[in-house]
Amino acid sequence: MCAKYVILDCDGGSDDAWALLLLLHAERNGMVKLLAVTTTGGGNTTREHCARNMRRILKAYAREDVPIYLGAVEPLLGSNDDEKKYFHGQDGFGDCLDASDCEKVEDFVQPLHAVSAIYELCRKRPKQITLFAIGPLTNLAVGFTMYGEEFGAHIKELCIMGGNYQGVGNSSRAAEFNFHSDPEAAHAVLAKAKRCPITILPWEPCTDKHFNVPISWRLEDFGARAAAAGHAAITMLNKVESVQWLPMRFPNWNPCDAILVAAWLFEPQMVKKHSTWNATVDLRGTHTRGQMVLDHLREIEKYPENVRILEEIDNECFKRVVEWIAGLRKEV
Amino acid sequence: MCAKYVILDCDGGSDDAWALLLLLHAERNGMVKLLAVTTTGGGNTTREHCARNMRRILKAYAREDVPIYLGAVEPLLGSNDDEKKYFHGQDGFGDCLDASDCEKVEDFVQPLHAVSAIYELCRKRPKQITLFAIGPLTNLAVGFTMYGEEFGAHIKELCIMGGNYQGVGNSSRAAEFNFHSDPEAAHAVLAKAKRCPITILPWEPCTDKHFNVPISWRLEDFGARAAAAGHAAITMLNKVESVQWLPMRFPNWNPCDAILVAAWLFEPQMVKKHSTWNATVDLRGTHTRGQMVLDHLREIEKYPENVRILEEIDNECFKRVVEWIAGLRKEV
Amino acid sequence: MCAKYVILDCDGGSDDAWALLLLLHAERNGMVKLLAVTTTGGGNTTREHCARNMRRILKAYAREDVPIYLGAVEPLLGSNDDEKKYFHGQDGFGDCLDASDCEKVEDFVQPLHAVSAIYELCRKRPKQITLFAIGPLTNLAVGFTMYGEEFGAHIKELCIMGGNYQGVGNSSRAAEFNFHSDPEAAHAVLAKAKRCPITILPWEPCTDKHFNVPISWRLEDFGARAAAAGHAAITMLNKVESVQWLPMRFPNWNPCDAILVAAWLFEPQMVKKHSTWNATVDLRGTHTRGQMVLDHLREIEKYPENVRILEEIDNECFKRVVEWIAGLRKEV
Amino acid sequence: MCAKYVILDCDGGSDDAWALLLLLHAERNGMVKLLAVTTTGGGNTTREHCARNMRRILKAYAREDVPIYLGAVEPLLGSNDDEKKYFHGQDGFGDCLDASDCEKVEDFVQPLHAVSAIYELCRKRPKQITLFAIGPLTNLAVGFTMYGEEFGAHIKELCIMGGNYQGVGNSSRAAEFNFHSDPEAAHAVLAKAKRCPITILPWEPCTDKHFNVPISWRLEDFGARAAAAGHAAITMLNKVESVQWLPMRFPNWNPCDAILVAAWLFEPQMVKKHSTWNATVDLRGTHTRGQMVLDHLREIEKYPENVRILEEIDNECFKRVVEWIAGLRKEV
Ligand SMILES: [Ca+2]
Ligand SMILES: [Ca+2]
Ligand SMILES: [Ca+2]
Ligand SMILES: [Ca+2]
Repeated sequence: MCAKYVILDCDGGSDDAWALLLLLHAERNGMVKLLAVTTTGGGNTTREHCARNMRRILKAYAREDVPIYLGAVEPLLGSNDDEKKYFHGQDGFGDCLDASDCEKVEDFVQPLHAVSAIYELCRKRPKQITLFAIGPLTNLAVGFTMYGEEFGAHIKELCIMGGNYQGVGNSSRAAEFNFHSDPEAAHAVLAKAKRCPITILPWEPCTDKHFNVPISWRLEDFGARAAAAGHAAITMLNKVESVQWLPMRFPNWNPCDAILVAAWLFEPQMVKKHSTWNATVDLRGTHTRGQMVLDHLREIEKYPENVRILEEIDNECFKRVVEWIAGLRKEV
Repeated sequence: MCAKYVILDCDGGSDDAWALLLLLHAERNGMVKLLAVTTTGGGNTTREHCARNMRRILKAYAREDVPIYLGAVEPLLGSNDDEKKYFHGQDGFGDCLDASDCEKVEDFVQPLHAVSAIYELCRKRPKQITLFAIGPLTNLAVGFTMYGEEFGAHIKELCIMGGNYQGVGNSSRAAEFNFHSDPEAAHAVLAKAKRCPITILPWEPCTDKHFNVPISWRLEDFGARAAAAGHAAITMLNKVESVQWLPMRFPNWNPCDAILVAAWLFEPQMVKKHSTWNATVDLRGTHTRGQMVLDHLREIEKYPENVRILEEIDNECFKRVVEWIAGLRKEV
Repeated sequence: MCAKYVILDCDGGSDDAWALLLLLHAERNGMVKLLAVTTTGGGNTTREHCARNMRRILKAYAREDVPIYLGAVEPLLGSNDDEKKYFHGQDGFGDCLDASDCEKVEDFVQPLHAVSAIYELCRKRPKQITLFAIGPLTNLAVGFTMYGEEFGAHIKELCIMGGNYQGVGNSSRAAEFNFHSDPEAAHAVLAKAKRCPITILPWEPCTDKHFNVPISWRLEDFGARAAAAGHAAITMLNKVESVQWLPMRFPNWNPCDAILVAAWLFEPQMVKKHSTWNATVDLRGTHTRGQMVLDHLREIEKYPENVRILEEIDNECFKRVVEWIAGLRKEV
Repeated sequence: MCAKYVILDCDGGSDDAWALLLLLHAERNGMVKLLAVTTTGGGNTTREHCARNMRRILKAYAREDVPIYLGAVEPLLGSNDDEKKYFHGQDGFGDCLDASDCEKVEDFVQPLHAVSAIYELCRKRPKQITLFAIGPLTNLAVGFTMYGEEFGAHIKELCIMGGNYQGVGNSSRAAEFNFHSDPEAAHAVLAKAKRCPITILPWEPCTDKHFNVPISWRLEDFGARAAAAGHAAITMLNKVESVQWLPMRFPNWNPCDAILVAAWLFEPQMVKKHSTWNATVDLRGTHTRGQMVLDHLREIEKYPENVRILEEIDNECFKRVVEWIAGLRKEV
């Protein structure tokens, strides 16, 4: 089996951490080759906090060799902090870890900007790299603006966690957090990535109605077993996610970014339903700014299909993936 | 059993006709008292065509005594014919009936404007009249503007066919026909009807995914039986709906307006799922203009619940309702 | 000279009062015949306060015979009180007059709604009535929606105080008060009044940069002379306008509604510059909602000219008009 | 006198060429030091055509040493070619020059991207470089997104040709070409450049109403004199501007980009009126998308002044500037 190249473009929350852990474990098993972690501000936290959090995971996993690049500082139009819901704390990791555990950001990040790094890496391995975009799409939108269609032409496949397809919002009443954090970027990426296939995990399949991994299973059952097995990164995430999840009293654990990566690694088992659409992002709606909009009229000549949407995920399979990451099982 | 007062505010399509037929049959069975039919332009057809079509049904049912009032000529902002999809033909009835079968509109409609008629009728019987709004909501929006909150305070209950709740559009990619035909009116009614409960049948439960009454059952099986039983109005609608439906090759028959009235008359059997929400209508979205938007954040203090949404309908039950209208069965 | 028929559709501020006074004085001089005063809510004050204020003027002028009709309660979309700047006080007259000086509103207003009154009056005298619209355009927009193009076809001429043409706002940063109070209505009237010429006095020619009648001239010089001459209505307005203007420390007096009527009565002397345009009203702009927008590309085939804009007014002439109203001079 | 550092960020039209020529002549006179020419697509032409046109001027002026950097390929949201008015031809220079006169773009442009070049140059000489932005503001917006507020903090002064302040449009009915070509970029720059003063020459002072340099003076009188004097670059522009201007039958010559540079170099003589405002750019208006909007309410605490607007320019002085460039006069 030949390892697939991947880049992780993330915004540093605890589910971004799980996505990274999953890629690292997949790499250990010869399934992927992780070329870079790129960060973006304007989502869960600043690009520097994001870099620090990802560095913590890499360190706990003894993979400080993976290069981290700092990306966009802000969304295209600037941030509207007033409107935003912070779920992951100010630092993306629940503000519960000791800052002294981490080197200075400037000491471990690469000198190149994330946008340039993505562009250069993909140019060197055209159509060979899968890009996971699990934060606001600012870095990608900037890449398309700076380099045009060519930017997307070199990417093999774009896998996005973000948006919604039935109008269910978690950041505003009708918009999902990643898209709502930079609606113009989301719009631009869907419009400009004509030469690169896109798979999207939207918000709806991650909601309680569709995805049921009890938070008690995550924090008590599984969390205890992983800690007992001595998994340093998961032990750290036990703390982070307890701080984030327990006060909210949400019944289920849905680390969306990791669900996307799991769906990509184990599609036949993980994905129970998917469909293809022409999708765009509304920018001007009073309530629907940042909402993804599908072409329900199916006017395919005018609006060709540009995204594949994952509609239903097998949560039992996802539990097995998580146990696999923790070393608690050999196979998924 | 005490008959409930109803007014039918409609835009003259064939499903409006079915809604009227259902009310007439319910009246014959002592369930309701139909006080007026009011018409609106800017939806399926002009307010005059609408009046003519409803008059045809009333005549075929020997109920010329039911008064018809002409309502709004246009949507609040004027019509955008370019954007619209006409399903019911220019005249709302598939353009297939002989115009000579009908009196002149001015000879049979009431002199009062529909908006004034609704206002006066409801003032006389405060909180006793259920208003079915099965076209664009223009007449109601005008009433709220002219008379303020008082206009709604006299209405017992507002039952609306229109809008959507999962972003599925049939008039634009993200908007349903009735709301899209006058988005400002839909917005205004949801915002202003604070003293009058609202039930909405949106588009999604009427789509193939959720509602399956085969068009062949309608036009061949049931249509033949109703014609054989000598039902004049249904025989006329057999012709109208054949012209409308067959060229489209839609698999299912979903006369939305009639489904709403049936759900109201027979709620326990008809309605399998409903929920309450704060809902508004987006006016400014590029793609979501006219889309209904639910408050998925459930910020109830700021945005109190204002609508009840019918999410799932029993289509087998609806078939029984239709047979009941045709006199093919005694009970639903 | 043959008197011209006029209707005054107003929202009850002190400049509405001056517009009424000017029409009453013109009528006394055989220049016009005032058929009705119609009121609208959603502008300076409620429709009832508006009626009361206009009644005060009519009484002070001994013209209780002029019929007053109550119009729209609210703007088409409902009011956004948060966004509004009240200049004229809660009651439109600076909240400084004794409420006991006035009869009950229901005792002196006509039973018919203003929209119906305008429609009926203009139908009876087609193309003979000039309609002054000096508040939000809600009544007219409702008329066009209820009756279609025919509503405008009977009006001889529509004279509007409202809007702007260089982006200068007084209600929001880019919108004028009357248009901003019901942007949809302003948009609809400009779009639908195809069979009726429109003259607009926008905000810019009324600003200090273009119009200089010192408030001291108004309140001290002229006000004292009119009071000395025993003009009851102006004496009342001396009080009202002192309360409104002095705390603001605005240097100039610009009773916009009266300037419009004066420009119409004495156009050759009053109007120094005018131009014709295709104009519309922006509804969706973040900052430009309610702004009037001219077709500076002059794409006349697609967008025919629909308004005449008064760009510059002679303020010295206006002072003479005011003195003429007060009986301080025989001619303008 | 100490030369001031400048960078020219342009989109390659003939007025961009005049702006460059003016800077080159100023440099020859020891007034400025031109560090770089950066190009952007999405305005008059592609970034490559822009580079080629600027190279032609540099060559004609024997200044091939000035580095040219390619910038953004597209606007942030992608281009809407349908809506755009091309004044300068497909290639920005009237499509009238022989393509063979120019080297390959890749052979003379710098390897660095314009956004990085601007960032690096300004970081090296913090608060010493004046940046002229005379095309769509895409490069600057990308810089602010990638590097945050720091990007602007290093710039001494930003001089922009673009936008409007009285709603006069030349690209759409209410928007000016440069801002309309990338409204999001214009919005972002005005919002984010908090640590860098901005001077704007909007469209209105360049219109016939305010600026009168007859096209006949430019092409016949002055053009002939400059050609006779053997000025190679102007001789080339004689051809280019004849092709662009004459078919349009515009009466006046208004090379906006050069007017801005002239106003900066010779402010006391050139600028007859200026004012400071809080300004933003409307993004969502149906007609006002891309329009600049001033805070006419002057709510300075909430919206601090962020731009200086040049309202009136002395066109006689500009003619002297142009003659100075051509070597036809020693002083302005
Ligand atoms: Ca994330
Ligand atoms: Ca209907
Ligand atoms: Ca007024
Ligand atoms: Ca330019």
